[in-house]
Amino acid sequence: MQDRIDRVRAPMRQADMTAFLVSSPHHLRYLFGFTGSNGMGLITSDLCFFVTDWRYRDQAQAEVRDAEIVIVYRDLLAALKEKNILPAGSRLGFEAQHLSFRHFSQLQKLFDKIKFISTEHLIEKIAIPKSPGEIASLRKAGAMAGAVWDQILPCIRRDATESDLAAEIIYRSRKLGSEGEAFDPIVASGPRAALPHGRSTNRRLQAGDFVVIDYGCTVAGYASDVTRTIAVGEPPVKLREAHAAVKEACRLACAAARPGMEGLQLDEVARKYLESRGLKDQFSHSLGHGLGLDVHSLPRIGPESKDIIPANAVVTIEPGVYFPDLGGVRIEDDLLVTETGNEVLTPMSRELFVVE
Amino acid sequence: MQDRIDRVRAPMRQADMTAFLVSSPHHLRYLFGFTGSNGMGLITSDLCFFVTDWRYRDQAQAEVRDAEIVIVYRDLLAALKEKNILPAGSRLGFEAQHLSFRHFSQLQKLFDKIKFISTEHLIEKIAIPKSPGEIASLRKAGAMAGAVWDQILPCIRRDATESDLAAEIIYRSRKLGSEGEAFDPIVASGPRAALPHGRSTNRRLQAGDFVVIDYGCTVAGYASDVTRTIAVGEPPVKLREAHAAVKEACRLACAAARPGMEGLQLDEVARKYLESRGLKDQFSHSLGHGLGLDVHSLPRIGPESKDIIPANAVVTIEPGVYFPDLGGVRIEDDLLVTETGNEVLTPMSRELFVVE
Repeated sequence: MQDRIDRVRAPMRQADMTAFLVSSPHHLRYLFGFTGSNGMGLITSDLCFFVTDWRYRDQAQAEVRDAEIVIVYRDLLAALKEKNILPAGSRLGFEAQHLSFRHFSQLQKLFDKIKFISTEHLIEKIAIPKSPGEIASLRKAGAMAGAVWDQILPCIRRDATESDLAAEIIYRSRKLGSEGEAFDPIVASGPRAALPHGRSTNRRLQAGDFVVIDYGCTVAGYASDVTRTIAVGEPPVKLREAHAAVKEACRLACAAARPGMEGLQLDEVARKYLESRGLKDQFSHSLGHGLGLDVHSLPRIGPESKDIIPANAVVTIEPGVYFPDLGGVRIEDDLLVTETGNEVLTPMSRELFVVE
Repeated sequence: MQDRIDRVRAPMRQADMTAFLVSSPHHLRYLFGFTGSNGMGLITSDLCFFVTDWRYRDQAQAEVRDAEIVIVYRDLLAALKEKNILPAGSRLGFEAQHLSFRHFSQLQKLFDKIKFISTEHLIEKIAIPKSPGEIASLRKAGAMAGAVWDQILPCIRRDATESDLAAEIIYRSRKLGSEGEAFDPIVASGPRAALPHGRSTNRRLQAGDFVVIDYGCTVAGYASDVTRTIAVGEPPVKLREAHAAVKEACRLACAAARPGMEGLQLDEVARKYLESRGLKDQFSHSLGHGLGLDVHSLPRIGPESKDIIPANAVVTIEPGVYFPDLGGVRIEDDLLVTETGNEVLTPMSRELFVVE
């Protein structure tokens, strides 16, 4: 993890920070290897501290590398204060999105003559290009999602409930070695498929339904995120045509993705095509997002995103169109952006599958 | 939900707040019925606003009661600003633990002549005594955890992996109707049972192991939280004796729990007993915690807690003892505190179960 911590020090120097406080659990795993739920990290130009509570003592000692481990009974921030590395006049950077007001307020009381530097996406940006080890985990997570799909397909049939399918997805993911769900599986059928974030319910699949199924596995913390839409019985023509359009939009975006693009350029590939098919207004969300320890990460891939997509970024491509009261279609794959183009990490057919 | 919102207005009046901003997802569900992942609520002395993004438009309209629903493309807080209900000089309360510094900072920019009132546990305190409807859900969640246990027991055997058992727990919970896991199941075997927060791994159960199994179901959002410890083959005498002591500590605390006690008084019942058995230092955590939409809630039940346990509170009782490198024992039940005593919501035997 030493090279990652060193990479944090470059933006720290640019902002003249004495130290940087890491509070996001994903970032604690990224920088220190810690997988527990309660911890904080403090990085200076030459030192590193990781503090957690006594429940995680053994775990921290087994997992944390390249930092002095501090174990406390309760108060993580007070323990950092005792290290005496932030004299009056210091400048302490912190993660505005991942620090509660409560913790910020406690910092202000503990360190009363220092300047606080609010940051956004400091670690997120460093974490965009993935190392060979990270890529190996992401590749496994993608392949695992594909293996889960092969096992789930036979379970999708008329009268199965959305919740039953969600249970099967989780069970088979875990049995195949997933560390946990990247997020609670979305299984949205019939008119509910028009909800981009529909949770599974006890609704039973019916003839004529489209079913949007969106889930992800995790390997060593790294997520996959895939979506397929299947038909139960013969679907309405409008949905069948929408599926063909979304499938083509997904193919075009996957064919186009290469390093150096801005997020909005890649988004435009799919958006223009769907516009040409009269589906512009139905494609109501961004094309995709970065993928890593956090399932929704940088670079953003949407109509307003100027984020550059570098080589070794991993991103999702997930065009979708939605018709209120009728249903919806989304198809999502994960891509590793390479030096010359990209590699699809989720080897699953995009053809419309019709079950009885 | 109107009575809950009215109850928020009492502490608002005490602190002379013009409005209170609700940001915790659990509290948005508690006060407004919203089950999505992105939203904010604003309560004044006579108005109520609920704001979420377009992805949750249909869901908010179906779920949210007793508030004006505001749908935005992106910026929740800016939309609240447009309601013009916080003139210069207003006092805006917020949840210090559940608001990121980023959102707080945005509030400061949007509302530049108002006073911000940081609060701790304002909603958490209101939510301690449960309504009949909440109690019905908590009772179902407890019974469901018991039904899961009956199905899991036959799966616990030598050579099963911890992760296999975690997968079975989740699968059977979902098939029995659990809305989701209250938390990722803990299955910690052999020496790993000495870790109070051990996640499941690929370790296989061996003869002589104690296995700590800690999980919970959710019904309408309300959680159960149970733990049992079982033996694989004949356990070491030290662990068998520890199990008997923890079982008795759990029984004594459950027998003692009644309304009006302080958290520390209930904790002391179990702690004194374990001390009498020479296990004081091995009982390294609090006896329990409140249970509701949030699995770790108020009242706190630990050696320093002056929280009063009122009638209609639901709490966990979970004494545990841990021996590094050998193993551990924890037994946990959920109690509804009644007007006269309590009712155990998790109908599961506490006897030591030895599997082959």
